[in-house]
Amino acid sequence: MSNKRKRFMLAEEEIPRYWYNIQADMANKPLPPLNPATHEPLKPEDLYPIFAEELCRQELNQTDEWIEIPEPVREMYKYYRSTPLVRAYGLEEALGTPAHIYFKNESVSPMGSHKLNSALAQAYYCKQEGVTNVTTETGAGQWGAALSYAARLFGLEAAVYQVKISYEQKPYRRSIMQTYGAQVTPSPSMSTRAGKDILTVNPNYQGSLGTAISEAIELARTTPNCKYTLGSVLSHVSLHQTVIGLEAEKQMELAGEYPDMIIACFGGGSNFGGIAFPFMRHTILEGKQTRYIAAEPASCPKLTRGKFHYDFGDEAGYTPLLPMFTLGHNFAPAHIHAGGLRYHGAGVIVSQLLKDKLMEAVDIQQLESFEAGCLFARAEGIIPAPESCHAIAATIREAKKCKETGEEKVILFNLSGHGLIDMASYDKYLAGDLVNYELSDQEIEKNLEEIDKL
Amino acid sequence: MSNKRKRFMLAEEEIPRYWYNIQADMANKPLPPLNPATHEPLKPEDLYPIFAEELCRQELNQTDEWIEIPEPVREMYKYYRSTPLVRAYGLEEALGTPAHIYFKNESVSPMGSHKLNSALAQAYYCKQEGVTNVTTETGAGQWGAALSYAARLFGLEAAVYQVKISYEQKPYRRSIMQTYGAQVTPSPSMSTRAGKDILTVNPNYQGSLGTAISEAIELARTTPNCKYTLGSVLSHVSLHQTVIGLEAEKQMELAGEYPDMIIACFGGGSNFGGIAFPFMRHTILEGKQTRYIAAEPASCPKLTRGKFHYDFGDEAGYTPLLPMFTLGHNFAPAHIHAGGLRYHGAGVIVSQLLKDKLMEAVDIQQLESFEAGCLFARAEGIIPAPESCHAIAATIREAKKCKETGEEKVILFNLSGHGLIDMASYDKYLAGDLVNYELSDQEIEKNLEEIDKL
Repeated sequence: MSNKRKRFMLAEEEIPRYWYNIQADMANKPLPPLNPATHEPLKPEDLYPIFAEELCRQELNQTDEWIEIPEPVREMYKYYRSTPLVRAYGLEEALGTPAHIYFKNESVSPMGSHKLNSALAQAYYCKQEGVTNVTTETGAGQWGAALSYAARLFGLEAAVYQVKISYEQKPYRRSIMQTYGAQVTPSPSMSTRAGKDILTVNPNYQGSLGTAISEAIELARTTPNCKYTLGSVLSHVSLHQTVIGLEAEKQMELAGEYPDMIIACFGGGSNFGGIAFPFMRHTILEGKQTRYIAAEPASCPKLTRGKFHYDFGDEAGYTPLLPMFTLGHNFAPAHIHAGGLRYHGAGVIVSQLLKDKLMEAVDIQQLESFEAGCLFARAEGIIPAPESCHAIAATIREAKKCKETGEEKVILFNLSGHGLIDMASYDKYLAGDLVNYELSDQEIEKNLEEIDKL
Repeated sequence: MSNKRKRFMLAEEEIPRYWYNIQADMANKPLPPLNPATHEPLKPEDLYPIFAEELCRQELNQTDEWIEIPEPVREMYKYYRSTPLVRAYGLEEALGTPAHIYFKNESVSPMGSHKLNSALAQAYYCKQEGVTNVTTETGAGQWGAALSYAARLFGLEAAVYQVKISYEQKPYRRSIMQTYGAQVTPSPSMSTRAGKDILTVNPNYQGSLGTAISEAIELARTTPNCKYTLGSVLSHVSLHQTVIGLEAEKQMELAGEYPDMIIACFGGGSNFGGIAFPFMRHTILEGKQTRYIAAEPASCPKLTRGKFHYDFGDEAGYTPLLPMFTLGHNFAPAHIHAGGLRYHGAGVIVSQLLKDKLMEAVDIQQLESFEAGCLFARAEGIIPAPESCHAIAATIREAKKCKETGEEKVILFNLSGHGLIDMASYDKYLAGDLVNYELSDQEIEKNLEEIDKL
């Protein structure tokens, strides 16, 4: 095994001062979100009851290319950023590939994932606007942990609905949120109407991100001075995550290379957008040839097998209608261990980009993802989150193609988080207890017919 | 809560090229290890059957102040070092102290602790000398995980004996070792004579580091081309860990301050020595006034209540006799969750330094340690390892004294690892299920009488 290693760091003053808003540069802008009752396009103020006002403005901002990072947020970024850009010599050697593989290591944040990049921003704006309580949903718990800490930091109370299957699969993440002082409830719960409605029909339902979102939105709506926050999907979340790609751009310069491919796992799109958009800017504005590959789980294939259509962002239908690649808001994903990818839809920006063929998508089965994760762990020492394993698997596929063709392509992927809290999943994989999930066309069609009526 | 943050990093070329060997500068050198049968002082070659030869020479080297870090080891250091030095503004504010608190964040290594610093060196020397298999013991599993990864990196097979109580309390760490491809056995086991002897007397014995060491040494002795490695206690381990303090010295310069106190938790002494020795050099050579405080668990108080005496390093008596502060090699520590601190003795260098009053020690009860850990997690975002919580608790005691006196003392502590794998322990703490352990003088005397006969 090679013990050659190289990481690239940025000095504090090189940490971005602006987020990059790709909406401003897109030739085809995302379609507007619609009021489900009237089908009228929404204005920022229509979203004020749910989200902090500045976040609503960011969500629908299609004109400003750069949005300034507030100094208190950047101050916190400096605490764990820049994250390292690493040349994965170990993985290259294990694969025997001529490809040059780099990864952006977002797992070094105190929360163990990229999620803190947006949690800090969202908690900050809430605090600025006089909010006292925040609610959210979480799958694997990476986002919930990040929001719990950010809330604590800015003096807000946090209530988190965690998808029940993850609450049970990953009890340590619940403990982390509780250690930060957050209130954590498994979803679906009996504490909301949305939760009760689902449990009445299906008492054993193990939950989904769509359901947990409904519960959190309902709590925000019925609690004074409380706002809802979301960890992915929405455009303002991807905006905050662009610090990843903006740093990576400078770090790739230090490495003296430019990526031919950029790969990230895909749940709602925020870590994908975070690393891809700043590079995609050069594709849009300068015609730079780069492939952008989203790696989604085969059991939740909205990009590769879903439909581009207006749909709700949540199970109960509390959100506006969003123009997205979707499997239908009532789609119940299989119980894969990558809890953060178990979501039915894609954010509106990535959906438009996929429609316009500016990016591609691949689907990865559960066993291939863990096989890739173990190979990476042994080669690079870092145990990746089950979500990130999908990006690694897609990277390995491309690196193997390079081995066949002999091409020295430059691949950059986002290591969105570590898997230290997910060792029970690795245990099951190593014991041969994990399976793949096949999804028939009929199963997919079933939920898609529903949304045609919206 | 303050969101002011500051971290100090070093450029790659500033990463140390030499380890600092404090033995060369000590006025009173550590007494030599003795052959238990003849009571003759040992020479390096007497240790060759157990350890890699270069490590034996380093162990007894009392003349060379600086020992060069082999380039392949330094290459790997560059992968995760420098680790950040952080000004803990959040903790200062939470305490309302005028003290300036800094911590060296060793938790950012891919293994989550400082242990990799020595694991890389030990695996490298073994590989250089043609060894094919390595064995070791581990408590909480931080060392076992680090050695498993380092072994994998240098192409060695690893077999790890994990203290049974930790094997059960922290199953994720076992999974991590297995993910790296190591063979993990709970200790005491029936696979060695040492294990069998103990299980015969006490079938329910939950293990200790001393027992696991015996088992690993026995396996090394009875396996061709296999060497034993140790994660703390020995002088060569502390030597490798001085990269921590050497970096911290330069980083404190960047911060424009010099520590009045240096604090670390204490199991065998390697993370304490790692951060303290490079600073202590200035105390020994230039008379610099700095306090060095080791924080040990009240349930395993070798420094504060043990005896300076020749004793075995392991339960079964396989090691040479070492001049150390000890509770007796048959001391069975209470089942505290800081598994890495459950060891009966202190390394020979720190033992001599304590005898010579160049350093101090304090003991911390389990509940105080977790209370400190939770306060730190909420203030700084990082969940500390239960071991590191002891250093934080000692830091908080000193910071509170500063609050009383109004003194702006500069405190530097070592955050030896994160506690993400230890969330079950935090869970128990938050649920009120953890207790303190009181240790009577009689219990301590009992084992100390034994060693008088050695």
